[in-house]
Amino acid sequence: MKPKEFPDCQAARLENSFKLTRVGVTGIKKPIIVNRDGKECHLTADIDVFVDLPSTQRGSHMSRDVEVVAEMIDVSVRKKVASLEELAAIICRRLLERHDYASFAEVRMSADYFLERRPEGGMESLEPFKLMAKATAMRGNGLMKEVGVEVQGMTACPCAQETVRKIVSDEVPGFKKFAGEVPMISHNQRNRTTLMIEVPEHVEVEADDLIDIVESSISSPTYGILKRKDEGNIVLRAHRNPKFVEDVVREILGKLLLKYKALDDSVHVTVRSESEESIHKHNALAERVTTLGELRS
Amino acid sequence: MKPKEFPDCQAARLENSFKLTRVGVTGIKKPIIVNRDGKECHLTADIDVFVDLPSTQRGSHMSRDVEVVAEMIDVSVRKKVASLEELAAIICRRLLERHDYASFAEVRMSADYFLERRPEGGMESLEPFKLMAKATAMRGNGLMKEVGVEVQGMTACPCAQETVRKIVSDEVPGFKKFAGEVPMISHNQRNRTTLMIEVPEHVEVEADDLIDIVESSISSPTYGILKRKDEGNIVLRAHRNPKFVEDVVREILGKLLLKYKALDDSVHVTVRSESEESIHKHNALAERVTTLGELRS
Amino acid sequence: MKPKEFPDCQAARLENSFKLTRVGVTGIKKPIIVNRDGKECHLTADIDVFVDLPSTQRGSHMSRDVEVVAEMIDVSVRKKVASLEELAAIICRRLLERHDYASFAEVRMSADYFLERRPEGGMESLEPFKLMAKATAMRGNGLMKEVGVEVQGMTACPCAQETVRKIVSDEVPGFKKFAGEVPMISHNQRNRTTLMIEVPEHVEVEADDLIDIVESSISSPTYGILKRKDEGNIVLRAHRNPKFVEDVVREILGKLLLKYKALDDSVHVTVRSESEESIHKHNALAERVTTLGELRS
Amino acid sequence: MKPKEFPDCQAARLENSFKLTRVGVTGIKKPIIVNRDGKECHLTADIDVFVDLPSTQRGSHMSRDVEVVAEMIDVSVRKKVASLEELAAIICRRLLERHDYASFAEVRMSADYFLERRPEGGMESLEPFKLMAKATAMRGNGLMKEVGVEVQGMTACPCAQETVRKIVSDEVPGFKKFAGEVPMISHNQRNRTTLMIEVPEHVEVEADDLIDIVESSISSPTYGILKRKDEGNIVLRAHRNPKFVEDVVREILGKLLLKYKALDDSVHVTVRSESEESIHKHNALAERVTTLGELRS
Repeated sequence: MKPKEFPDCQAARLENSFKLTRVGVTGIKKPIIVNRDGKECHLTADIDVFVDLPSTQRGSHMSRDVEVVAEMIDVSVRKKVASLEELAAIICRRLLERHDYASFAEVRMSADYFLERRPEGGMESLEPFKLMAKATAMRGNGLMKEVGVEVQGMTACPCAQETVRKIVSDEVPGFKKFAGEVPMISHNQRNRTTLMIEVPEHVEVEADDLIDIVESSISSPTYGILKRKDEGNIVLRAHRNPKFVEDVVREILGKLLLKYKALDDSVHVTVRSESEESIHKHNALAERVTTLGELRS
Repeated sequence: MKPKEFPDCQAARLENSFKLTRVGVTGIKKPIIVNRDGKECHLTADIDVFVDLPSTQRGSHMSRDVEVVAEMIDVSVRKKVASLEELAAIICRRLLERHDYASFAEVRMSADYFLERRPEGGMESLEPFKLMAKATAMRGNGLMKEVGVEVQGMTACPCAQETVRKIVSDEVPGFKKFAGEVPMISHNQRNRTTLMIEVPEHVEVEADDLIDIVESSISSPTYGILKRKDEGNIVLRAHRNPKFVEDVVREILGKLLLKYKALDDSVHVTVRSESEESIHKHNALAERVTTLGELRS
Repeated sequence: MKPKEFPDCQAARLENSFKLTRVGVTGIKKPIIVNRDGKECHLTADIDVFVDLPSTQRGSHMSRDVEVVAEMIDVSVRKKVASLEELAAIICRRLLERHDYASFAEVRMSADYFLERRPEGGMESLEPFKLMAKATAMRGNGLMKEVGVEVQGMTACPCAQETVRKIVSDEVPGFKKFAGEVPMISHNQRNRTTLMIEVPEHVEVEADDLIDIVESSISSPTYGILKRKDEGNIVLRAHRNPKFVEDVVREILGKLLLKYKALDDSVHVTVRSESEESIHKHNALAERVTTLGELRS
Repeated sequence: MKPKEFPDCQAARLENSFKLTRVGVTGIKKPIIVNRDGKECHLTADIDVFVDLPSTQRGSHMSRDVEVVAEMIDVSVRKKVASLEELAAIICRRLLERHDYASFAEVRMSADYFLERRPEGGMESLEPFKLMAKATAMRGNGLMKEVGVEVQGMTACPCAQETVRKIVSDEVPGFKKFAGEVPMISHNQRNRTTLMIEVPEHVEVEADDLIDIVESSISSPTYGILKRKDEGNIVLRAHRNPKFVEDVVREILGKLLLKYKALDDSVHVTVRSESEESIHKHNALAERVTTLGELRS
């Protein structure tokens, strides 16, 4: 029996109906391989894919979404695709080919990712990060790619530190002269910062560079293995480098401008930093949604 | 010791820095009471609040965010506030008063919510839904409120049903004449549909009506208690009423146009329906992000 | 049409089959009211209920599970039930009545819960906690109830503190004499501690007391609203009171022995403390699963 | 500066204190490679590790936990370790070596895992499953390993099917004679079943076999890519094979007895099946916690 013989409910024609912004599948899980500088990187990716749907057609053929994802992952291995966002772009283009009724396609991917990290003087360990990628395409109107990272690290609060400095200086006679030299206590906590940036055609933005930018903009990176002395040094580093979430986002924005001078003003950037406050049960968050052009002006 | 004596790190002046889109706190949890038609409704709300931050100021005074939330919840009880979105609006306005450096404020809230439901001929039970609310304000430029609901229900797939009808009609001699009368098997599954709509000043949009609109647009609502016969009837109802996620979103959009004829063209609407497909490990999703004006044209 | 006329698939008799340990429903969500000292406390509870199933019966009648939950919540309001664990016990007993083939029943409940808290000299706010309850019954063999709490708070690490004290004392000439008086920096973080204890028949164990025991055993409780001075004082308190997760669990165990001298040796206790380490991406956990008798010996 | 010079807070001696059941770290994330039949399998594992702590010692040296995990993952690659549970066992043994004060160690691991699957007559795709492993060791008393899987699939309800058969047979004259031949509608839904079994020393239990056992015990496996005809066939298969969660667990138990005749009576087995009911907002769950010996008697 040929597939053609079954009724195609999705293709049913509608009148007086509404177009839809996104129709597709969420939560596809696939193993993928990207080829970074000749080294295979094995990732387990979570993938969402969508196309739009005109008002005249009842349904999108969603099995094609999953077929396209599987085919393009195969292609990506053979062609040694170098990044998650390149794979997202390939899937996005192919979605528009397979859904000829669609004028828009969108792909979102994320995956755990590991880099070797060593605290100064300490032991090396593989630290987990998260890679993110997004691609959108308008038919006949090019394609937009974004690459992103999520980084866990540590922030120490500058405000509590100054308040404590004042309290202790008042309470402990003779301490005042050390108050500038000895790092004061503060609350510090786990921080999650995400950074997404548009990657124009013919340009490379390395996720590893984005991770470096975030890790250098928080109070201190964090590490899986810290022997006693390493732990002391990380704590000292964080308290000599206290940061509000506002500071973290702004420092990242500044570094992006320096690092990506060659990128167009139109490039989209989103930076979000969330601290899981140790003195509160809620979190502190700062965010900037912008373009490089706005940041440069 | 007066608070004034402590250094105000947040108020530090910056040069050559960047403004921030959102700065605030996420994950505040509070018990709240809204007063619907003279009946107290006790909710446990999750709340996020943000303001923007000019490029010249180092930090936002986040303790004010939480103070404002607590104060306005108290006010809402005394003033018998009628809805989550009204409370969100009150918090939003007060945030702009307390953060005089901010030009934008945003509040998001969500809470479990219960309504009595009875399947035809069955037993009444309290069914859980989710209420959502959002308010944003630009200083000197009014306020935008949105109310939303998340509804769990059931969808049965129209496509699989037609395919099975064809297979069974071919395989079982003499069955064909019943194929129109007897509902055919299909895959069906838990569906989550969310609907958010802007609520203009001086207009009421009842969350209960939104829940009704969603429940009447899926294959069948679902119920906590179903005795044998009720269960059979719900299964029959869902299979006589098969729905793609695309159908669900469009039916809701159509009902919104009928129900809210008096609302302006500028009113924002977002409808999203996600089916946790029983034949796949991934979900199917359809979404429309639009305005009433676009839907009417 | 009478329900009796429908086939009862669940009652089908099996041969050579297996009994089942737990059969039931998970994820029931219900609003409930407990009456603590004459004051109504509105909770949104998550509820799981199970019975066992003999090898000879095909299925459990799960609609009865949800009916029992709904009926007993109604009863609990009329009878002014004083606690979540009392409600769990009532549901548990009724499950055995309604499932006459079962010899075991189990009920688990949890709900957000709020208490007024004020940091010394600071502002009062409603802080969120989690209530937990469990009841199990063997037919003809009494009933076991447990009450529990989950508390978020703050821990500061004693080890990093000592390491930093050594580093700073070595680096900063003349500081040594202050090293005992001035609290040294350390990493601190959000901590979640859970405590469950069996409640024998005719005994009251107040959840509020359990929350007090946990909050007094961590480095510091945390608060929604902290003005500058309060924040400084909380940071000081935590660093003058550094705690490993091991210390937290042991301190709670010691306080339980003092507080509940009248309780039998057979009473079960589980204490678990997890710190979301600010210097690591993983958590630190300590746990003791025991009885009061073991702790006393 | 030698590490020895820093104070060892963890080693502090306690009097009149309490031993702890588990002390360690949770949420370690690591890429690992297992070597199955000469083929490298890349996994991203979530790992928890614990030891116990005697009443006389203040703290466990947790940095050793993470070191041991990292070292043993390296060893596992060089030695071509064949499974997650073998790696868990290696880590468990090494924990006891490194924590000489401990008498107990425990390791839990889980990872996404993919197998090629093809619906009859359909297209092949990589389907996601979850691997689980656990190892515990008592010093001087051997080691216990468990391997487990989590499988998503589909269940169709036998009870609703029979009720509908009765309703439709009564309502549609002449249909009765087809009621045995034509599969009746029912509610069906996503099901998650987990199966863990102890692996005695010198015995192999293949995770792939466990996945096969689960997939053959539910109403139907599910697939990423289903063209129209495949979808119809899967729906037919599920409705010709309706299953309560109770049926799923019992069928798995029966297959385990047949497959693992050589395993000892003492071998622990846990099977849990949870259906995300399409007609309810809550789930249905069945579970058996047992040994092969109990099942055989």
